[in-house]
Amino acid sequence: MRRELLTADHEAFRQLVREFVAKEVVPHYTEWEHAGRLPRELFEKLGSLGVLGMSIPEAYGGAGLRDYRYNIVLQEEAARALVTLGTVRTQLDVVLPYFLAYADEHQRERWFPGLAAGRLLTAVAMTEPGTGSDLAGIRTTAVRDGDTYVLNGAKTFITGGLLADLVIVVARTSTDPGDRRAGLTLLVVEDGMPGFARGRVLDKMGIKVQDTVELSFDEVRVPVANRLGEEGAAFGYLGHNLPQERMTVAVGSVAQAKAALETTLAYVKERQVFGTPVASFQNTKFELAAVAAEIEAAQTMLDRAVRELVDGDLSGADAAKVKLFCTEMQARAVDRCLQLFGGYGYILEYPIARLYADARITRIYAGTSEVMKVIIAKSLGL
Amino acid sequence: MRRELLTADHEAFRQLVREFVAKEVVPHYTEWEHAGRLPRELFEKLGSLGVLGMSIPEAYGGAGLRDYRYNIVLQEEAARALVTLGTVRTQLDVVLPYFLAYADEHQRERWFPGLAAGRLLTAVAMTEPGTGSDLAGIRTTAVRDGDTYVLNGAKTFITGGLLADLVIVVARTSTDPGDRRAGLTLLVVEDGMPGFARGRVLDKMGIKVQDTVELSFDEVRVPVANRLGEEGAAFGYLGHNLPQERMTVAVGSVAQAKAALETTLAYVKERQVFGTPVASFQNTKFELAAVAAEIEAAQTMLDRAVRELVDGDLSGADAAKVKLFCTEMQARAVDRCLQLFGGYGYILEYPIARLYADARITRIYAGTSEVMKVIIAKSLGL
Amino acid sequence: MRRELLTADHEAFRQLVREFVAKEVVPHYTEWEHAGRLPRELFEKLGSLGVLGMSIPEAYGGAGLRDYRYNIVLQEEAARALVTLGTVRTQLDVVLPYFLAYADEHQRERWFPGLAAGRLLTAVAMTEPGTGSDLAGIRTTAVRDGDTYVLNGAKTFITGGLLADLVIVVARTSTDPGDRRAGLTLLVVEDGMPGFARGRVLDKMGIKVQDTVELSFDEVRVPVANRLGEEGAAFGYLGHNLPQERMTVAVGSVAQAKAALETTLAYVKERQVFGTPVASFQNTKFELAAVAAEIEAAQTMLDRAVRELVDGDLSGADAAKVKLFCTEMQARAVDRCLQLFGGYGYILEYPIARLYADARITRIYAGTSEVMKVIIAKSLGL
Amino acid sequence: MRRELLTADHEAFRQLVREFVAKEVVPHYTEWEHAGRLPRELFEKLGSLGVLGMSIPEAYGGAGLRDYRYNIVLQEEAARALVTLGTVRTQLDVVLPYFLAYADEHQRERWFPGLAAGRLLTAVAMTEPGTGSDLAGIRTTAVRDGDTYVLNGAKTFITGGLLADLVIVVARTSTDPGDRRAGLTLLVVEDGMPGFARGRVLDKMGIKVQDTVELSFDEVRVPVANRLGEEGAAFGYLGHNLPQERMTVAVGSVAQAKAALETTLAYVKERQVFGTPVASFQNTKFELAAVAAEIEAAQTMLDRAVRELVDGDLSGADAAKVKLFCTEMQARAVDRCLQLFGGYGYILEYPIARLYADARITRIYAGTSEVMKVIIAKSLGL
Repeated sequence: MRRELLTADHEAFRQLVREFVAKEVVPHYTEWEHAGRLPRELFEKLGSLGVLGMSIPEAYGGAGLRDYRYNIVLQEEAARALVTLGTVRTQLDVVLPYFLAYADEHQRERWFPGLAAGRLLTAVAMTEPGTGSDLAGIRTTAVRDGDTYVLNGAKTFITGGLLADLVIVVARTSTDPGDRRAGLTLLVVEDGMPGFARGRVLDKMGIKVQDTVELSFDEVRVPVANRLGEEGAAFGYLGHNLPQERMTVAVGSVAQAKAALETTLAYVKERQVFGTPVASFQNTKFELAAVAAEIEAAQTMLDRAVRELVDGDLSGADAAKVKLFCTEMQARAVDRCLQLFGGYGYILEYPIARLYADARITRIYAGTSEVMKVIIAKSLGL
Repeated sequence: MRRELLTADHEAFRQLVREFVAKEVVPHYTEWEHAGRLPRELFEKLGSLGVLGMSIPEAYGGAGLRDYRYNIVLQEEAARALVTLGTVRTQLDVVLPYFLAYADEHQRERWFPGLAAGRLLTAVAMTEPGTGSDLAGIRTTAVRDGDTYVLNGAKTFITGGLLADLVIVVARTSTDPGDRRAGLTLLVVEDGMPGFARGRVLDKMGIKVQDTVELSFDEVRVPVANRLGEEGAAFGYLGHNLPQERMTVAVGSVAQAKAALETTLAYVKERQVFGTPVASFQNTKFELAAVAAEIEAAQTMLDRAVRELVDGDLSGADAAKVKLFCTEMQARAVDRCLQLFGGYGYILEYPIARLYADARITRIYAGTSEVMKVIIAKSLGL
Repeated sequence: MRRELLTADHEAFRQLVREFVAKEVVPHYTEWEHAGRLPRELFEKLGSLGVLGMSIPEAYGGAGLRDYRYNIVLQEEAARALVTLGTVRTQLDVVLPYFLAYADEHQRERWFPGLAAGRLLTAVAMTEPGTGSDLAGIRTTAVRDGDTYVLNGAKTFITGGLLADLVIVVARTSTDPGDRRAGLTLLVVEDGMPGFARGRVLDKMGIKVQDTVELSFDEVRVPVANRLGEEGAAFGYLGHNLPQERMTVAVGSVAQAKAALETTLAYVKERQVFGTPVASFQNTKFELAAVAAEIEAAQTMLDRAVRELVDGDLSGADAAKVKLFCTEMQARAVDRCLQLFGGYGYILEYPIARLYADARITRIYAGTSEVMKVIIAKSLGL
Repeated sequence: MRRELLTADHEAFRQLVREFVAKEVVPHYTEWEHAGRLPRELFEKLGSLGVLGMSIPEAYGGAGLRDYRYNIVLQEEAARALVTLGTVRTQLDVVLPYFLAYADEHQRERWFPGLAAGRLLTAVAMTEPGTGSDLAGIRTTAVRDGDTYVLNGAKTFITGGLLADLVIVVARTSTDPGDRRAGLTLLVVEDGMPGFARGRVLDKMGIKVQDTVELSFDEVRVPVANRLGEEGAAFGYLGHNLPQERMTVAVGSVAQAKAALETTLAYVKERQVFGTPVASFQNTKFELAAVAAEIEAAQTMLDRAVRELVDGDLSGADAAKVKLFCTEMQARAVDRCLQLFGGYGYILEYPIARLYADARITRIYAGTSEVMKVIIAKSLGL
C-alpha cells in the first residue's frame, strides 16, 4: 500500500543515500565484515555529506533537522543494497539523542562539531557482565572527588565500543537500598583517559560490521564537566530514549525483511531446478506471498508508530508491540526466504545468509521479545 | 496506537449502534443462534434506524452516505458486544454494492426503498455444487426468450438465502469456449418466482445466526427488467467488488480478535486457579501480549487499507494481503485466548467458544487463504 | 513405519470392533450427536460383545485381560470410521481403573457384573465450579456419621454424568490446613440416592455425543460400604491413574489426526477446482506431507509410551510429553486438513468439521497443555 | 522414555567415544572452526581407535561390524560435548557405504586398509553448479578411452573435498535422451591425478569444521579400475543410499537439539536476571518443556526408523518423514533455546550460537524439506 510517512524531502534524501551506499559502502562491505568493524573514513564521509549532523543544530555544524524519518531512509537504503550501516545506526539513533537532549552548552561546543563531522565516534555503555540489561543491578561506580568522578567497573556488549572516542557510561553515583534505579548517572569517558581500556572484541554470529566489545574502567578520573545531565537522573534519561531505540531495531527488521524478499524474488525467477524456475512452484509462490503479506502488515504498523514517534506521543507499550511484531516477523520471513535458495542460502557470499545471521539479534537487543511482552502485558493491566 | 481512520461522525454513529446492539441484539442472540437465522424484524429495526439505507441515495429513502467506514463501525460494535450482525453484514457489504452500482433507474425505484427500510432482504448466488468459487466453471444457464431469461441451475453456500426476497444470481447467458469468464450475467430472482426453490439449510460449525442454504432454479422465468447491468458483464462486476468483500471479512476478523482479547482479559483477571488469578501467570501475560501485538499490526494494516478502499484505490493484491494476514491472525489469536479459559473455553455459553467456531470460516470464505496467496504471488511477478 | 505395539490378538479384536462400529455406531452417530449423548443400548451391546468387561476378572463376568492395548484399538477403529465412542472411552480408560484397583471384594460382587454387561454406567466427579482441576481446592465435603458419609457439594464438567449409575465422587473427609491434598476420599454415589441431582447439561463446541453435566450433592447419605479404597487416600489414587488418562487422550488425538488425514486424502483426490483435482496442487501435497510426518512422529512416540504404560513404568513426565505433543499435533493437523476442504470443511455434514470442533478439547482436558508443561519442566529440574 | 535401540555393546562404544571427544576434539574445536576443516591427524587417531574401520571387513583392517547404531553413538557423543565430528560423519555415513557396497576385490585391497586407518580421506561429488541436486541434470562427462575414462566437468558443495584423497565422482558415461537418469557412473578420482583441481572453499554460515569446496575435472584420466560398480548404474546406487544419508542428518538434528536443551538448562539455572535465575520464569519453564516434548517425539521416531534401517526395510518415504520432522524440530528447538540466553546467545563463544548457525543447513542438505515433502506426498498417492 502507499506509504504516507515520507515527504518529498525524505525521498530526495533517499536518492543521496542510495548513491552513497552504492559507491561507498557496497564495494567494501565484505572487507569490513572480515575486519569486524566500519572504517573511520566512512563516518568522515557521512559527516561531509551532512548525514551525521542532520539533527545537530546548525550552530554546531549540523543541519538542525530533528526528524527521525531521515534515519529511517538511511536504514532502508542500506538494506535495499543488501548491506547495513552498522554502528552508524547506533550512533545516530541510539547515542546521539542523549547528547542532543542532555549536553550543556559547553559540551555542545566541545563535541557537536566533531559528531557532525564524523570525527567523533560514540557508544553508550549500559550492560554489565552478570547483570545484563537490568539497570537496577548496575555495579559500575562513580565516586565524586572534587571536580572529578572516579569511575570503576566493567561493561560488555558495547556496540561501537572499539572505535568510540566518546563513551557514555552509566554509573552508580549513590546507593539507595530502597530504590536501586536511583543514583545512576551518565558520564562521558573519552578515548585515552587513563584507566579506560577496551577488552575483548566479541565474536558474534552476525552483524559482523558492528564491533561489540568489553570495556573496563579502573580508577578512571572523569571530570564533572563530562557528566551528561543531572547526577542521579540517568534512569529517567534511558527510559525516555527506549521507544526510539526500539523503533530503530524495528525499522531495520522491516527493511531487511523486505530486502530478503526482493533478493529471493530475483533468485527464484532466475534459478532453475528440475528444468523449471524455482518461481514456478506453487510452494515458492505461497511462501513468498505469505512473507509479503506479513511485511505489509509490519510496514504499515511501523510507519504508524514512527508517525507517533515523530509527533512525540509514541507510548512505551506501542513501541514494544511494534518491536515485538516486526522482529518476530523478520525472523519468520528471512527463514522462509533462505529456504528457497537451497544450499546457496547457506553460503555467505549470498546476502540471504548474512540477512539470516544478522536477523537473530533483533529479537534480543534493545530489549528481548520477552521484555517486550512484559511491557505490553503491563499495559493490558496484567 | 491512535486510529486516524474514523471521524467524529463515525464515532457518533458508533454510539447509536452500541445502544442498538445492547438493546436489540444481545438479549436475543442465543435464541437466533438456535434458530439458525436472524429475524426479519431486526432488518426492519435497522431500517428504521437508518442503518440499512446509509449508502442508498436520499431520493429512495436512504441517507446518501457512501462511506464504508460506517459499515466498519457496525461490525466493530457487534464484536465488542460479543455478537455479530450475521447476514446484515453481507447485505450491506457484499450485496448492496451491486444494486448501487448497476441498478437502472427503474430498478432503483422498485427496490431501493425496500432495501433502505429493511423490508427487502438479499443474497448473492455465485457458488455452485462441484465448481466452488471458480466463476469460469459456472453451469447455471439463463437463456433469453423474448423479454425473459429462462434460468436453470443450482447454487450452494448462499449466505442469507433462506430469507432473501431478492437473490442476485450469476448465470451463464452465452458460451465462449475460448473464454469461460465471458457470458456471465447478473439476474435478480425474486421470492415467489415459479421454479425458484430453497434447498437444504447447511448445518455449519459456527456463524450460526447466518443461514447458509442451497438454492435451485428450475425453468425460472426472470424478466429482462430484472437483469442487473449489462448482459455478459458479470465477471467484471464481481471482480470489481472483491476488494470490499475481502475487507469486510478482514474487518470482522480484527474486530472479533479484539473482542476475544477483551473477554479473555476480563476472564483471566477474575478467574482463580491454584489460589491465584490466571492473569498472574507469566504464560498468561506473554500469550496475551503476543496477541495484542498481532492485533495492533492487523488493525493498522486494516485501517490503512480501508482508507485506500474509501479513496477508491485499494488494489486487489493489497486487499488479498490484508485478508490473508487479518484472518490468519484471528485464528492464532482466538485459539490462544480460548486456551486460557481451560474447560470453560469449550462451553458455548462462554462467547470465546463461539468466537472460535466462527473464526474458522474467515480463512475460507470470500476467497481462501490459498486464493489470496495466488493473487499476492501474481503481484510479485510469480 | 511398522508398528510393533500390537499383537495378532489385538488385530483380531480390531476386526471385531471394526464390524461393530460399522454396524452399530456409524448409522446412528448423527442422531446421537443431536441427542447429546450415547444410548444405554450401545453400552449393553458392547457389554454383550465382551468389550466392556475386557479387563474385569473372569469371576465377575469379564475376560480378565488387563491390557490397555485393546482400549487403543477401540479408539482407533472408531476414529477410522470417523466417529468416536464418546463416554465408552471414559468409562473404560478413566473410570474403570479406579474400580479395578480399589474396589473391595464386596464391591466387586455388587458392581463388576453390571460394569461388564454394560448395565452400569459410570462417571468420576472431580472438578468443581470455581476451583477447576486443582484437587487441593476441593470443597465438596463428606462427614462421617455412623456407617454413612453425609455428602455436600457441587461438581461440574462431569463427562458421562447424565446417565451414570455410579459416580465416583472426590470429597474432602478431613481438613489439614498444612496439606490441602490430604483428606480426600473417593465415594461411589449411586443413581437415585436422595439429594443427588444432575444439573445443567453443558452445551459444548464439539464432542457432542459425550454428555457433560453439573452434579449436586445435598446431604446425600453414602454408605461407608460405597467408599472406594482408604479414607483420605484419594489424592494418591488420582495421581496414579493420571498417566493412563493422559494416554487415552493422546491415543484419541493421534487416531483422529490420522482419520482427518485419510478423509482429506480421499477428498482432495476426488474434488476438482479450476478443472483439476485439489490433490494436484503442490500446496495440497506439501500440507498433507507435513501432516503425515507429524502423525508418524506422534504415533511412534505414543506407541512407545503405551508400551511403557503396559509395562507399568511410564513416568508422569513422559505421559505429559506425549499428551502435550500429540494433542498439539492434532490441532495443527486437523486445521490444515480442514482448510483443504474449502467451504465444505465448515459444514458439519463433512466429518472434518466435527473432527475440528472435537479437537479443540484435547489440549484442555485431562490436564491442559500448560499443566503438561509444568510437569515436564519439573522433570527438567526447572 | 527408555530407548530400546542400543545394546550394551553400543553403550561400551559410547564410553570410548566420550573419552576420545573430551580429549581429542573439544580442546581443539575452536581452532578447527577457524581453520575451516578438520586436521588429518583426527582421522588417523580415529583410525587407530578402530572407529573408522568399524564397518570394514576384518580382512582389510576393520572390525567387520556393519551396524549403523555405532555411527549414531558417534554423533550423539560429539553433540553431547557441544561439538561435531564434521566430515568424519560424511565419510562414515555417506561415502563409505558406496565403497562397501560396490568396491570390487581389487579396490578393496587398494583402499580399505587406508580407509580403516584414517589415511585415506574421502568425498562424494554429485552436485553441480546450476543443476543442484537434480541428478538428471548432471553434465560432467566421462568418455571411455581404452582402459581409462576421460573426465570433464565441475562440481560444487563438496563436503570434505578439500582434503579428500579419494573422490567418488558422479559422471555421465552415456546419454539417453529419453532417460536422463540413465548413463551415470561412479568414478573414484584420486588426489594428484592430472587435471583434478580443488576450487574455492565456500564460506558457510555454520558447520565451520566441515570444508565445502568446488572441484573441477579437466581431461582427468581415470582408470577403468577406479570405476565403482557397473557403468551406468549410479542412479540406482545413489538412490539406494539416500535413506541412510537422510537418517544421518536426522540423527545429528536430534542429537544437537538435545545438546541445545542441555546447555540451555545449565545456563538458565545458573544465570540470574533481575535478581532471580532465568530458570525461575514460567516462560523459561514452558519453552523448555515444549522443546523437551518435541525432542522426545523426534527421538522415538528416529530410533524406530534406525531400527528399520538396520533391519534393511526403511522405506524412502519413512526416511523422508523422519528427516523432515527431525530437522524442522531442531530448527524450532534451537531457536527457542538460544532466545533464553539473551545477548550471550549471539556470541559464538557460547555453543548455542554455533548450534543455531549449524542447524540452518539440516533442512537443506541431503534433500531439502521441500524434496522430503514431494517424496512423502507421492507415498500418499498425491
